[in-house]
Amino acid sequence: MIKKKTTLLSLFVLGFSALTLNAQKIIHDAEQAILEEQYGNAWAKQDKDIDKKLKKLEKRFGKKPNIVHIMWDDNSFGEVGIPVFNKIRGYDTPRLNKMGQDGIIFTRMYTEPSCTPTRAACLTGRLAVRSGMYTVAFPPEGAGLPAEEVTIAEILSEAGYSTGFFAKAHQGDIEESYMHNQGFDEAQFSLYNQFPPIFWHESGQAGMMTIGYTESMTEKKYLVDKTWRPYGYIMDVEGKKGEKAKETLPPSLENYRKLIDIHQEKALDFIKRKAKEDKPFYLAYWPNMYDLNRNGLDITASNGSPYSHNVERLDRHIGEILDELKKQGISENTLVIAMADNGPMTEAPAAMYQTVFSGGKGDYREGGIRVAAFAEWPGVIEKGTIVGDIITCHDLFTTFARLGGGTKYIPRDRIIDGIDQTAVFLYGDGQSRRDYHHVYTGPYHAATIKQQYKRVWLGGRPGLVKNDFYDLYQDPKEIRGMMAQFLWAWGPFDMMKKRHDLMNEKYPFTPTRHGVPFEGITNLRPESLQYQKTVKNTFNTGK
Amino acid sequence: MIKKKTTLLSLFVLGFSALTLNAQKIIHDAEQAILEEQYGNAWAKQDKDIDKKLKKLEKRFGKKPNIVHIMWDDNSFGEVGIPVFNKIRGYDTPRLNKMGQDGIIFTRMYTEPSCTPTRAACLTGRLAVRSGMYTVAFPPEGAGLPAEEVTIAEILSEAGYSTGFFAKAHQGDIEESYMHNQGFDEAQFSLYNQFPPIFWHESGQAGMMTIGYTESMTEKKYLVDKTWRPYGYIMDVEGKKGEKAKETLPPSLENYRKLIDIHQEKALDFIKRKAKEDKPFYLAYWPNMYDLNRNGLDITASNGSPYSHNVERLDRHIGEILDELKKQGISENTLVIAMADNGPMTEAPAAMYQTVFSGGKGDYREGGIRVAAFAEWPGVIEKGTIVGDIITCHDLFTTFARLGGGTKYIPRDRIIDGIDQTAVFLYGDGQSRRDYHHVYTGPYHAATIKQQYKRVWLGGRPGLVKNDFYDLYQDPKEIRGMMAQFLWAWGPFDMMKKRHDLMNEKYPFTPTRHGVPFEGITNLRPESLQYQKTVKNTFNTGK
Repeated sequence: MIKKKTTLLSLFVLGFSALTLNAQKIIHDAEQAILEEQYGNAWAKQDKDIDKKLKKLEKRFGKKPNIVHIMWDDNSFGEVGIPVFNKIRGYDTPRLNKMGQDGIIFTRMYTEPSCTPTRAACLTGRLAVRSGMYTVAFPPEGAGLPAEEVTIAEILSEAGYSTGFFAKAHQGDIEESYMHNQGFDEAQFSLYNQFPPIFWHESGQAGMMTIGYTESMTEKKYLVDKTWRPYGYIMDVEGKKGEKAKETLPPSLENYRKLIDIHQEKALDFIKRKAKEDKPFYLAYWPNMYDLNRNGLDITASNGSPYSHNVERLDRHIGEILDELKKQGISENTLVIAMADNGPMTEAPAAMYQTVFSGGKGDYREGGIRVAAFAEWPGVIEKGTIVGDIITCHDLFTTFARLGGGTKYIPRDRIIDGIDQTAVFLYGDGQSRRDYHHVYTGPYHAATIKQQYKRVWLGGRPGLVKNDFYDLYQDPKEIRGMMAQFLWAWGPFDMMKKRHDLMNEKYPFTPTRHGVPFEGITNLRPESLQYQKTVKNTFNTGK
Repeated sequence: MIKKKTTLLSLFVLGFSALTLNAQKIIHDAEQAILEEQYGNAWAKQDKDIDKKLKKLEKRFGKKPNIVHIMWDDNSFGEVGIPVFNKIRGYDTPRLNKMGQDGIIFTRMYTEPSCTPTRAACLTGRLAVRSGMYTVAFPPEGAGLPAEEVTIAEILSEAGYSTGFFAKAHQGDIEESYMHNQGFDEAQFSLYNQFPPIFWHESGQAGMMTIGYTESMTEKKYLVDKTWRPYGYIMDVEGKKGEKAKETLPPSLENYRKLIDIHQEKALDFIKRKAKEDKPFYLAYWPNMYDLNRNGLDITASNGSPYSHNVERLDRHIGEILDELKKQGISENTLVIAMADNGPMTEAPAAMYQTVFSGGKGDYREGGIRVAAFAEWPGVIEKGTIVGDIITCHDLFTTFARLGGGTKYIPRDRIIDGIDQTAVFLYGDGQSRRDYHHVYTGPYHAATIKQQYKRVWLGGRPGLVKNDFYDLYQDPKEIRGMMAQFLWAWGPFDMMKKRHDLMNEKYPFTPTRHGVPFEGITNLRPESLQYQKTVKNTFNTGK
């Protein structure tokens, strides 16, 4: 249904054609229909009460609620925001601890297993595999979020919100994927992840890298190809909706460190400016928190690792955001979500760690996908709420749309995995409208979670037993795979997968969108032009 | 210095000879002298303030504080008393959660790695290996806590306390080891652990056991020795100081289940009676909480395991104790400690589990020795305190003695590992007077903890590298053993062990005390007499 290659303009038209008033129901994954049948009436009734509550709030504040979505990298449940874990890990996160006490701590917030997929999932409300955004790319890339994906920024823009994006997008390096081309009024964002600026350049290599990226560290005697190393990648750009982009600072450890503060300032400035306007705002602030290079850091945390230093700075930065909302007098009309995008990169140096679950970033086990997550909304969310329900990052899309009056702009021509979870924020624990999650790693359907049970599909062979059934209450670390005890669940899980697969046949996944990198950036450096050429040549190969 | 075989009477005399007014300093392990040198003056100053505070309290309440020490089996940090973990594990512990909020949550309370050693350590303030109490015995045993060990019950009795012991002692089956012979005015206690009554008898075997203990399940055709199976063990006895003991209920699953409630009632009754008296009281209530046999349990917890059912009952029972203290109006003059004796028995059926750390019961890794632990003392302990300091179960001995005015009765002829940690209860986090712990498993010195570092000795060979150094902040699960990074700590750990070993040469360990089981019990069953004979014959072999 979706064309593979189109012009940028036609993609926009195609994307926005779905943004029309539409009474049709949102197409959720098959599993949701099973729940709808059991709870449809109760939910419809509850929805009326929710509408009443939201209208009352809108009347009080004169506009719909602001939404601030803060999302950082690689941090599983417990790593921030829970005091006893601070003691175990040897650092302090007082502001997130307070956020947990003042609002919601989620104990089963599921994401995709890595940065790019989770960010795409939040933007689109869809499993990342549906938009082809299932890999984590490093430069050179030449790919990104397709224009015809409808983002929460597009939906909330349509619903009358100001929208801003700051810090880490990691949604590709092709023009259609840029945040200001994906619905944000204003954006300053990173195209890739943090490893290139932190570790690849001279000052960073001392940290941990294999040598070889920079010219000075390149073996020379036998060197032939001088274009193979991805010099000229772009770290960070800024742009406004409808305008071209500009590179901000060229990549280096020093500039990356500067950018962490610059993004924070931009986010604060956005809040200051938008607080005064008549329109509500949606701020996606996804900070580049990590700087795992010990060089030059003045680490004061007991833990002694760059990681702890980074986490403590993140905590201060989030505190500043919360303080600014308060200072502007808009806290009570602002939902703040603070969460990680996936579990810790346990391969990384310097104590990024998995404290409770097993596995980490990239893994379908709980440690990869069950993250630190908090919400605050004074006066709406009850203090000290702990939500043990299953809720996923995809749900934020649908929930934000609902809160912003944008549900009608959610496209009805594709599967939307996100469920409206407004009830969880308004009524607390035990109110989730989902009890399942299909876990993908890359393009593979790796596992399925239903209630407290989990079955791992990856590595399974038809007709043969596979011992990968888990009771997540009794075995949250997934260390005791069981089969005999779970024979009763064999069939129900099979049926669940079958329903999911049949829906996927009807609504096929969009292939990964490839293109020429750095188009639409006006101030390309000579190295960046070389980089662009390398990628172009790659994709022209064989044509 | 301590005779190996003496009469019961002479042992008492030897034991109590230390209970004389003594201005000499307590002999701590060598490591403490290093700290004393650095902090002696500061501690002496703080001690004066502590004395003032305690005197003020005594004046207010007209007596020294009551002490309630509740200690249950096999439960590591997080398993109870912390709301977010309740959600992860699928059961609720509201009363312990509230205790944590109202008092102290300890995040580094270390015990010995199994039941008998930890209980001996609490009673004596000494590493269990020093009193020969380093193994976990099952019937037939014929061993137990030596009479010349000076228990906290003896010390507090001397200091004018009423003392009561209820539920699981597991301190042996020889007369000198009985709780009412070890300083308690009144006691009802189990001689062994819970496995025999839960699983060995007819009704329990369905649960999980190898068949073969009961007569009906014994292979018969080739059966020769009819005394080999330990029929006739005694589950539970009661006795009063200076009197003989009586068996209460003979072992069976049904009687074991009855006893859980009976012990609870006895503990409550003790509080009711003693609250009104002029003397303060010391209550050691160490409940037999577990009943991992699913048969006949009405499990309502989400987790669905007998374990969760047991934990929820424990929580209710502890709630009843706290309620009773309140009802009697003595909460504010009562220190309550609630804690586990060691990590979970991860080999056990039905979801006893290690949620944060690695390893479990019997293991020198954190999972074996870093337990769930809480303290409450309204008006003295500040609400919401989280103590990240190292504190060990041995310290409770010395601390209870201090609180009860019994420090002078602590013997000065042996090493006392317990440190007076009164400051932690009065001033909170960061006040511990120790930063180390020597970990023994059985008779082996398995590991040494100093600050956030840990070195594992077990399996090491002189002159060869061993990769078992850990940073417990950066790697609380002890999964990344490191050596090169810890070469700086090689020497300091070696010195620490050397100091410890030299002290042990000067004050040798007491060998495990053996004897005839069940002496001093007046109502022995015929099977118990047979059991007694079997053990007697064993120890007479070769004489």
